[in-house]
Amino acid sequence: ALAAPAIAQSAPEIRWRLSSAFPRTFDTLFGPAELIARQVAAITDNRFQIRVFPAGEIVPPFSTLEAAQNGTVEMTHVPNYYFIGKEPALAFETALPWGMTFRQHNAWYYHGGGQALLRELMREYNVISFLAGNTGAQMGGFFRKELRTVADLQGLKFRIAGLGGQIMARLGATPQQLALGEVYSALERGTIDAAEFVGPYDDERIGLVRVAPFYYYPGFWEGGAALSLNIHLPAWESLPASYKAAIETACAMANADMMAKYDAVNAAALRRLVAQGAQLRAFPREILAEAWKAAHAIYDELARTNAKFARIYESWKVFRDEQFLWFRVAELTYQNFAFTAAQTVR
Amino acid sequence: ALAAPAIAQSAPEIRWRLSSAFPRTFDTLFGPAELIARQVAAITDNRFQIRVFPAGEIVPPFSTLEAAQNGTVEMTHVPNYYFIGKEPALAFETALPWGMTFRQHNAWYYHGGGQALLRELMREYNVISFLAGNTGAQMGGFFRKELRTVADLQGLKFRIAGLGGQIMARLGATPQQLALGEVYSALERGTIDAAEFVGPYDDERIGLVRVAPFYYYPGFWEGGAALSLNIHLPAWESLPASYKAAIETACAMANADMMAKYDAVNAAALRRLVAQGAQLRAFPREILAEAWKAAHAIYDELARTNAKFARIYESWKVFRDEQFLWFRVAELTYQNFAFTAAQTVR
Repeated sequence: ALAAPAIAQSAPEIRWRLSSAFPRTFDTLFGPAELIARQVAAITDNRFQIRVFPAGEIVPPFSTLEAAQNGTVEMTHVPNYYFIGKEPALAFETALPWGMTFRQHNAWYYHGGGQALLRELMREYNVISFLAGNTGAQMGGFFRKELRTVADLQGLKFRIAGLGGQIMARLGATPQQLALGEVYSALERGTIDAAEFVGPYDDERIGLVRVAPFYYYPGFWEGGAALSLNIHLPAWESLPASYKAAIETACAMANADMMAKYDAVNAAALRRLVAQGAQLRAFPREILAEAWKAAHAIYDELARTNAKFARIYESWKVFRDEQFLWFRVAELTYQNFAFTAAQTVR
Repeated sequence: ALAAPAIAQSAPEIRWRLSSAFPRTFDTLFGPAELIARQVAAITDNRFQIRVFPAGEIVPPFSTLEAAQNGTVEMTHVPNYYFIGKEPALAFETALPWGMTFRQHNAWYYHGGGQALLRELMREYNVISFLAGNTGAQMGGFFRKELRTVADLQGLKFRIAGLGGQIMARLGATPQQLALGEVYSALERGTIDAAEFVGPYDDERIGLVRVAPFYYYPGFWEGGAALSLNIHLPAWESLPASYKAAIETACAMANADMMAKYDAVNAAALRRLVAQGAQLRAFPREILAEAWKAAHAIYDELARTNAKFARIYESWKVFRDEQFLWFRVAELTYQNFAFTAAQTVR
């Protein structure tokens, strides 16, 4: 009888709301929030329940950071680079063009000092964030015409946002901001020339292959785009330690599970897209090289004028460059041989 | 007062023992078991405590499957391909030569039917297993002399175990089984010609670079070696659902965290090894191609004579081949350009 109140106190009944930046229909993007809620409920014997709302039901996608900041909801699940207009350094939460892959970002985040730097940044928004999902390297999108040189990008109307859009602008293209629902008809009518979204599984649903058959890769502006679970800081601090551990563990699971699901479903989706007429094309090397230069020119400019960006960029870039060197050795040599051997070695 | 007994019942005080197959000194290999214990304790307010023992303290490494089977300890953490002598299909728990990468194995395990197939197999050993760690693509080991053709493998005494050893034997080498503590002197004296272990971080500790400077890659027999958490099935079934969820979630975290840690520490270790005189060499393409053929010949033979192997191989191979095709597109093209661009694009 003496022990009972302590137990009850350490496992209070809590109900939270989580606003996702994605609609339910994109199940790979929406799913990790549900997985986090499910695992936390299971772990706590349903004492800590998180209800997940799709984009727009309580909070519009681009207000999710503000909502977590103000405590409109306790949690939001969103790629925090949505908010680089507020603060360019928020890009490090998600992805920078020519940034680290899924594995490398995890290595930096969990074992390279990334988490501490990002949490310091997010604290300014009254938020603690957790790494909670990744898309892997994305596709470059659907184009109406083939690209041969950088000159082919001149004046090209390309639906692409963020830093990827800034790079494309430096290469001569005209980035377009367009709601997802308007992309198909704009591409069909030729109002725009190209549009990118995520990868085969998500791209297939929008049906762009029917109006723009050239399917380019890689989406070098998102070599691995991470999603964040943002938690209103006072809400987080009110939790018992066991519930904090439950969230931390569930986020790590969701981060890995989202990547595993994308890898599983993208493979089959790509096959279907090719059957539907997608013509796979790698971006010409000249475009990749100019994009590499433009990206790093932008980072240098940001680092000169923005101390927050400079602070994280320094850690991120040193880590990335060393990761790139190591991954060229065992991992990349393995992949380059194995991934083609099934077709070529007899 | 009415609610208290129910709470107490659903959160009993439990103490379990976990036997790792690794010594404490190899912290990347030993660490995931400690992480699982730490997270489970934190999540359950220390009501479920798992004590982790290093290799040999209760159970010798190669008796860990038996120990989980008999309930000598409730849990063991081990690469289950240690036990392919009992059953070759256990290799699918860990790695097969020319198998899937870390990401691809996760995709198969969590979203491609792999987990169900492997759990069906492990049930025969009175065990439920969880994916709980991965090394990523390993290095090929240290060689006293350079390799130019398959002929250079003739009679080569190579410390390598398991299916990798069987492949090397078909290519003309003589696989050697040698305890880790004996490898350095055997290589120094020329009793053996080559030895493989894991990757830069672990390999550095054994110091082989001083006696065999040619450091080959990739370790194609382990393109991503997974560790399993084996749990004595009756012990698992006795747990409340919340503790089961805690273990499941903590294992997913450990699986991802081990990979992140390896990626973080291998990069720097490789740099140090090169400074110590390691001469990096890729295996000649001819050796890779012959090894590819030998591996698949072995799998075909096993599938003809072993129904358990055949059942899992069918799922695994179809999934692997589709993953290889998809990863050649966005992911591999991204990596091939990005990983060298930092050195080459100006």
